[in-house]
Amino acid sequence: MSQSPRGTRIAHLGIAVSALGDSLPFYRDVLGLPITPLDDADGAHIVGLVAGESLVELLEAQTPDSPIGRFIARRGQGIHHVCFAVDDIDATLARCRAAGVRLIDETPRIGAEGKRIAFLHPSSTAGVLIELSEY
Amino acid sequence: MSQSPRGTRIAHLGIAVSALGDSLPFYRDVLGLPITPLDDADGAHIVGLVAGESLVELLEAQTPDSPIGRFIARRGQGIHHVCFAVDDIDATLARCRAAGVRLIDETPRIGAEGKRIAFLHPSSTAGVLIELSEY
Repeated sequence: MSQSPRGTRIAHLGIAVSALGDSLPFYRDVLGLPITPLDDADGAHIVGLVAGESLVELLEAQTPDSPIGRFIARRGQGIHHVCFAVDDIDATLARCRAAGVRLIDETPRIGAEGKRIAFLHPSSTAGVLIELSEY
Repeated sequence: MSQSPRGTRIAHLGIAVSALGDSLPFYRDVLGLPITPLDDADGAHIVGLVAGESLVELLEAQTPDSPIGRFIARRGQGIHHVCFAVDDIDATLARCRAAGVRLIDETPRIGAEGKRIAFLHPSSTAGVLIELSEY
């Protein structure tokens, strides 16, 4: 659990892109979002850009059979998921279970930067792939 | 132009939903996002929910031929657009033009709450329908 509750907010927006070099100039130079370094994860090269208290993450597949590679093959480029930062991921997952929300991760796993994360299935969230991340 | 530049940030995330009554309980009660009142716009009933400095907007079509109605018929429920708040929308649109970004609105128009807004075409933004809004 975090030390000082801040309420649920948008941690990042993950955008599946075919080629980072094609998409980065728009988000960095036209929108003017500063770059922040992020590690590769889940078979994707990632460029992070700061948008206020949230990040925009551009996700380029490292292989066609990675999650982002399969997403692009099926739906094309676009928003892949949204990550909400929550103060207590265990409490949020408990509310999900009580409400019958379908979970991809039944229990939190360790994601980028050591944070506890879990994905929810889009069938319970109006078609949106949602990641929860505990801050 | 805004009085004190804050940098580009996520103003809201617009999610196309088939029925507000089906989707609201997850976002309000499970994620715990507080509701904020918003007017209907562009042929959609809208429920706004506060997520930190951003909003989540649930968008339900009032008619099948509205933008949200057509989106759902084509792609199903899911994230429809992301709105970035910018300090100077004229300067941002000028950078778009210089970079060859395809615009839906060539000049800003007045959107909800009297803000100056403009939409960019997804073909120039890695498949993401982007709204700019001047704060």
